[in-house]
Amino acid sequence: MIGIFDSGFGGLTVMKEYLKRYPQYDYMYLGDQANTPYGSHSPERVNKLVVQNVEFLIKKGCKLIIVACNTASADALRHVQQKYKGKPTILGVLVPAVEEALRSSKFGRIGVIGTRGTVISNAYERELKKYQKELYKLKGKRAEKNVRAIQKACPLLVPFVEEGMIKHVVTRMMLKNYLRPLRHANVDTLILGCTHYPLLQKEIERMMGRRVAVISSGKAAADAIEDYFKRHPEVEKGLFKKGKRTYYTTDSAEKFETLGSRFLGEKIKGEKVEI
Amino acid sequence: MIGIFDSGFGGLTVMKEYLKRYPQYDYMYLGDQANTPYGSHSPERVNKLVVQNVEFLIKKGCKLIIVACNTASADALRHVQQKYKGKPTILGVLVPAVEEALRSSKFGRIGVIGTRGTVISNAYERELKKYQKELYKLKGKRAEKNVRAIQKACPLLVPFVEEGMIKHVVTRMMLKNYLRPLRHANVDTLILGCTHYPLLQKEIERMMGRRVAVISSGKAAADAIEDYFKRHPEVEKGLFKKGKRTYYTTDSAEKFETLGSRFLGEKIKGEKVEI
Repeated sequence: MIGIFDSGFGGLTVMKEYLKRYPQYDYMYLGDQANTPYGSHSPERVNKLVVQNVEFLIKKGCKLIIVACNTASADALRHVQQKYKGKPTILGVLVPAVEEALRSSKFGRIGVIGTRGTVISNAYERELKKYQKELYKLKGKRAEKNVRAIQKACPLLVPFVEEGMIKHVVTRMMLKNYLRPLRHANVDTLILGCTHYPLLQKEIERMMGRRVAVISSGKAAADAIEDYFKRHPEVEKGLFKKGKRTYYTTDSAEKFETLGSRFLGEKIKGEKVEI
Repeated sequence: MIGIFDSGFGGLTVMKEYLKRYPQYDYMYLGDQANTPYGSHSPERVNKLVVQNVEFLIKKGCKLIIVACNTASADALRHVQQKYKGKPTILGVLVPAVEEALRSSKFGRIGVIGTRGTVISNAYERELKKYQKELYKLKGKRAEKNVRAIQKACPLLVPFVEEGMIKHVVTRMMLKNYLRPLRHANVDTLILGCTHYPLLQKEIERMMGRRVAVISSGKAAADAIEDYFKRHPEVEKGLFKKGKRTYYTTDSAEKFETLGSRFLGEKIKGEKVEI
């Protein structure tokens, strides 16, 4: 079973991408509604919550776990990867987005938007620099491309999306404010570093203009898994393939079902669990 | 010692009112940052968190506890009052605001704004109807005054205030939208049913016009305590009066100190605790 977890609904946009590409697997989703939003918690708190979520999914039999939350990936992924040593495999959403951004960027000016937690962690910049070096080795010629990460925290976009204000004038105004420094910095690629943002992707693409490639971290993560399975066929073999889906939330199932269905794009049935 | 707790910083606006009137007492503040915001949690979850907070403050020696959060007062106050049976005394912020609104309202058209949790609980309407009946008995003549509560959830005001966007055009636009139905309903009194809202009080008063009395639940709660002490001198006697203040948070002390100082209007030193 593939376990996917997030601080709330956002991870369902990631799950949607997985279901689209690989509907054959069994999936278990865990939305930690009771502790939402991770973006405003301290790194220590996020670490603790991530361990709780991973423990829960392991007990439920997940052989592959996706941390479908940028803040959690930024603050705690390395920690749980080291703690569980590949049993099970735990993957995040940052690295796939970083790799796709590096492939797509022509001039190495890469914008990143996310929650305050994600931006403060500086994880995107760190990973961009790190993977750029790996690209050096592979492609030689691209060595001269200097990567610059221009990061901007957009703390109000999550509440706007959760309020369903996708096309609201107020959302557009704040979005314009948030994107201004990225436009002024002439970014050629923009990473949507929060799982809520794909719901605003069209508006963001319109504002950034046609020349800017907009990359959703969730979509990049789903794209990358095929390659991962090729390199690790033993992980893929261990997965059940009956197309079963289970949804858990740590708070009210009712709210989870209403909002969650909007994020996933199909009706879901949630169950409340204590973890 | 007087214990005051809230889901985060908001309760500091309540504490500010207490300190202004009764600086002589010892105070202990607990901001449950790790679980903020309560407004988007289910009533069961809020109940559980409120019990945790009360237990913590009891262990620390508080003889009087103020639930300085409207959502927590709405969802869980009665529960903890029954659970602890007056040992210690636990008071909320709803009833004082309701009593002041009933006293001030000429035509009984009372508006209430708050988080979605507070509005869904319907606690303000319930308390308004209940206390109106008590006023009947007292004043006879006022019996013909029918109270109508017009409630409006304003879920984005908390994030706006926490972002420091007090005078931002976007805040004004949303505020206008939120207040429109209350203006159309010709309310003569408006209860600010969330501890974050006093920071927007001037703007709200300007929008509602001079004829509408705007009542802050925190200020009403602080006003009411004097009367409470007269009726229960034994509670007042049990309080330490050395003017000591202690601030606890369940998440990062750094963030708590920065934002908290803004809410309280003076510098504070916070300590992180696990509860």
